Parts: sequence; C-alpha cells; structure tokens
Amino acid sequence: MNQTFDAARDFYLQPPEFTEIRDAAANAGGQLVRTPLFESERVNRIIGGRLLLKAEGLQRTGSFKARGALNFIAGLPTANRARGVVAYSSGNHGQAVSWAASRLGIPALVIMPETAPAAKVERARGWGAEVRLIDWRAVDAKSLCQSIAAERGMTMVSPFEDRRIIAGAGTLAMEVVEQAAEMRAPEPDAMLIGCSGGGLLAGCAIAAHALSPQTEMWGVEPAGFDDLARSLAARERLANEPGHSSICDALTARTMGDLTFSIAFRHVRGAVSVSDDEVMQAMRLAFEEFRIVVEPGGAAALAAAMFGRVPVAGRTVAVVASGSNVDAELYRRALEI
Amino acid sequence: MNQTFDAARDFYLQPPEFTEIRDAAANAGGQLVRTPLFESERVNRIIGGRLLLKAEGLQRTGSFKARGALNFIAGLPTANRARGVVAYSSGNHGQAVSWAASRLGIPALVIMPETAPAAKVERARGWGAEVRLIDWRAVDAKSLCQSIAAERGMTMVSPFEDRRIIAGAGTLAMEVVEQAAEMRAPEPDAMLIGCSGGGLLAGCAIAAHALSPQTEMWGVEPAGFDDLARSLAARERLANEPGHSSICDALTARTMGDLTFSIAFRHVRGAVSVSDDEVMQAMRLAFEEFRIVVEPGGAAALAAAMFGRVPVAGRTVAVVASGSNVDAELYRRALEI
Repeated sequence: MNQTFDAARDFYLQPPEFTEIRDAAANAGGQLVRTPLFESERVNRIIGGRLLLKAEGLQRTGSFKARGALNFIAGLPTANRARGVVAYSSGNHGQAVSWAASRLGIPALVIMPETAPAAKVERARGWGAEVRLIDWRAVDAKSLCQSIAAERGMTMVSPFEDRRIIAGAGTLAMEVVEQAAEMRAPEPDAMLIGCSGGGLLAGCAIAAHALSPQTEMWGVEPAGFDDLARSLAARERLANEPGHSSICDALTARTMGDLTFSIAFRHVRGAVSVSDDEVMQAMRLAFEEFRIVVEPGGAAALAAAMFGRVPVAGRTVAVVASGSNVDAELYRRALEI
Repeated sequence: MNQTFDAARDFYLQPPEFTEIRDAAANAGGQLVRTPLFESERVNRIIGGRLLLKAEGLQRTGSFKARGALNFIAGLPTANRARGVVAYSSGNHGQAVSWAASRLGIPALVIMPETAPAAKVERARGWGAEVRLIDWRAVDAKSLCQSIAAERGMTMVSPFEDRRIIAGAGTLAMEVVEQAAEMRAPEPDAMLIGCSGGGLLAGCAIAAHALSPQTEMWGVEPAGFDDLARSLAARERLANEPGHSSICDALTARTMGDLTFSIAFRHVRGAVSVSDDEVMQAMRLAFEEFRIVVEPGGAAALAAAMFGRVPVAGRTVAVVASGSNVDAELYRRALEI
C-alpha cells in the first residue's frame, strides 16, 4: 500500500461534514425518491404525541441503502468507475449497489449468500450486476470481497464504514427536517432510527445536528443485538454476543464500525431495544394506519415509539421506516397478529 | 326548489374545464400527497413495455377520493360551510369526506353500513365526523342522505356525479403526466384506471386530453361489473346486472352517473375486465415489485396491464393503483398466491 492510498483510505474513514450530505442530496438529481413523511391522526392519539413516519421503504431498491450507494459510486474518479465496484451483502446493500452501478453505467459484482431469495438474485442480475453466490458460513465474505477488489482493481463499496456512504444516508434526515417544516410540524424532539452497522444513524445524526440541533437522536436495536446500547455505556465499541437471532435480518451486524460508532458516541442520546413480537406489531400498525409495507428491521424504530421505549407523550417524534424488503410469508405472519 | 338552486345544480352537473383541474391542484396547498410514480425494471421486463405505477394508495385517507372531497369542500360558499356536509359511503368516499371536512374545520355526517369495519368508523369519528350506521340493504342510503341534507341545510357530497369531485380527481392524471416527464419517460401511450362510478376516470380523461392528448384512456372493471364496456358498446348508459360479486369492493357501483359516463363516452378508448384471481395476482405483484399495499379495486388496472387486456408491449403505460384500504385478512390471502 502506498502513501497516497493510505491517505485516501484515511480520508474516507473520517466523519463527513454536513456540506457533504447537502452535496449528496443535490447530486442525486432525481435518481432517488424523496420518500414521503406520513402522519396518522389515529396513531397520534394512541401514542399521545405526534409521530412523523419517514416511509423510506418506498426508496429505490426498497431501502435507504440506495442513498449511500449512489453517493459512493457517483463520487468515484473516472478511472475507478471503469473498473467497477464490488460489494458483499445478504440483503439491501447488495441491491442498492447493483442498482446504483446500473444507473451510472459501471460494472458491479455482488457477493451474496447461496440462501438469498431468488428474487433478490434475479433483481441484481436484472440491473446488470454479476452475482456470486457463496456459502456465507464457510467463506469470509468481506475477505473474499477485498481480494476480488485487489485482483480486479475494483472498488469495494463498504456497507457503512465510509464517509460517502454515511453522507448519502444522512440525506434522509435532511428530508425529514424539511418535510416536517412543510407540514408545519414542530422540529422533531426526537428521531428514532434502527441501528446495525450504524451508517444511517451516523449520517442522520450529523445532518440533524446541523439542521435541528435540539432533536435527540436514538438508535433502535433488536433484543440480543444491543451492541450500541452496551457500547455507549462502556464508552467503547463492543460487539454483539453470538447465539442470538432476530427477525430483523437487516439489523444483525456483529458490530458497528469505528467510524459509525465514533459519530454515534458524539451525537446520539441513547439506544433502546425491541423484541421480535413488538416489531411484528409495528409492521401490522404500519399496514393498518400508514398503508405501507415495512420489513422487520425497518419497523424497529416504529416499535420503539409504539411501546414507549423513548418518551413520546406530548412530543414530536420522527421515526424512520428504513426498508420494505420482506418475504410474503413473514409479512403474512405479521398480519395475523 | 328555487331557480337559483336549479341553476347551481345544473352547473355542477356539467364536465369541469381543464382549468378547474389545474385550480384544484393549486388550491390543495400541500394538504394532499403528491403520490409517487414508480417503475420497476423487473416488471418492465415481464410485460415487455414500460409500466409507470401511480401509488395513490399513499394518498391521505388511503385513496384518490381525498382529492375530490377536498376540492368539493374547499369550494363551498362560507354560508354552506358552516352547516356542514353529509355523505353516504361504504368505503373510501366516507373516509375522504370526514378527513377533508376536518381539514377545513367544518361539520360532517357520514352514513355508513352497520357492517363497516370498526377501524373505518373509528377513523371517521377521529376526524370529528358524526357517523350514522344503517342497515345498507333495508335503507336507501342516498335518499336518507338527501333528506338529512334538506332537513339540516347540509350540503350532500356526491361520490362522483359532480364537477368539483371530478376536477379534484383529475389532478391525479396531471401529476402522472408531470412525473413521467420528470422521469424522462415518454408521454404515456395509455393510462389504465379502475372504473365504478367513473369520477376518477372522467377527471383523469379531461386532464390527459389537455396535457397529453395522444394518451389512450382505458377503464378497467371487475368481471360482472362491466357496465362501462357495455355502455360504450350500446352508446348509452347501462347498469350492472344484479347477482354478481367481486373482491373489488370499491368498484361495484350499480352504474356510472350521466355526467361521468358522458365524459367517458367522449374521451375513453375502451373498457376491459379482470377477474378476482387476476386482481389478487396484481396485489401480490405490487407487494413484491413495488413494495406497496394495494386494495383489490386499486389493483384492477395493474391486473389489466399484467394480463395484457390492453396492448402494453413496446409501449409506456401508466397504471393507477387508486387505493390501499384492504383488510389484513384479505391481504394475507393475496400474499398466499
């Protein structure tokens, strides 16, 4: 590794400035959906506060990941673009990278588990991505990804540990603050965001800090995956213990990154947990009252508001429903509750 | 009835000019959602054309009915506003009138069937509407509504047979044409819209005729409720035969109005039918590929495109998913397919 490379690497492992988030929004140029911010009078009555729901499952590729992936790939120097990008993902990040690469006309290789739903594989291929299916337990996907990147001169798109990814994700909170003002709602007292790798929480925290500094930022984790809560208490980055499971497949990273945790540590008020059952009830509430499909990980923040994990009474609380990629079978179960 | 009243009544039973649709859009002033126009590369490949899906189920109250109701009530003279509005509805129109009245701070009475889902009754009451539950088979809801209007000096909000309702509904097609241009899609070759009373189809036909005259307008009806198809063939307004049923509860009016049919007769290319099973498959496709909840009546137009009832190959086809108010139980069944 030469010095230039190290310097670039180091640069991308620093927190983005707010201006980079603003630029990411400006550069997206109509490729992304400005997803709606919904409100339900009935839900407000139930919780005794004002709940603003960011319906990010309506984003291109069905999750907020499209924001970071597009910002990352759009910012690549021309030479790197031609060689393409590579990513590993069991879920939304892989879809987002495939889509963003196709939008910008560059090659993409996505490493996915053999167990990935056929529709996700087919969709990535439909966007022109090369898909490599591996045994997720036997092969270290990250190492494989890094070695392919080195071999082929491709750029690896990290799922969260990169300032361009974080800046892209932060555009979501910019929209929330703008849309709340358009609805003549007060500036949110709190914003609740599901946290796994922490890219969305970190980007949104930086944006909210600049635009609406009194908004408390909260991370929401599935029970058993509360590394952020424990890390904030310990004042150092900890990992999740193995042996837990959750229906929130998008929120089960083993640990946050150093970068995302350092941002969260500075800007986040706290982290709370929700159970699988609470998440299922939130998915049902989103169907009944907001008429939107929300995937389990995307419903964690709504569950935290519903079940009062964070103070909501008399307050304005923005809740991010971050994705909608849920299998029909699991969704049917959520509607049985 | 005095002469002034008759003249006003006659005025409202004429087709709206396009300028009234434009005014309706301008006057809505942020109360309505500019619902997204979605596209799925995968769906495009399946149908061999370009399908633009208007996700109107994300509208306030979960259907396009909010557009007409808001336009109607906002346009009432001050004296009539104070006395309030009355409507009869087993479904989306009642929700929309309750909501629009609450937005404008005027009283509303909604007559609903005793069998209406509790959530719909509760929601209407939550918006401050008075709800009267009646035995839908034993009582003629329209006559009851008219007599209450006369007694109390309230204004009856017709579900479709009124130029203000039609003008409000037409704002949807304005958005479709604008949004297609924003996506750099061609002007739609065809627009597919579910038809029952025909207010949405009529309003959209007038808007499309002004903004995109080459767009073919198609009505889509549930099998057994094909009064528009038969009426177009007979060149006169016919009613549906009794004895049929359909899961498309929003598309089972006995007949169109004179006004909506006269507009359709002038502007609509044709009408096609879809079966319950095809509608269920379209609901499932909307879940899988657009990640949105669509009610049966709202999925009829998508079903018509999926099953090639209207030419789609090599064309750009705008499809309106007009509502999202579906019970969890029925929705679960659609996801079992």
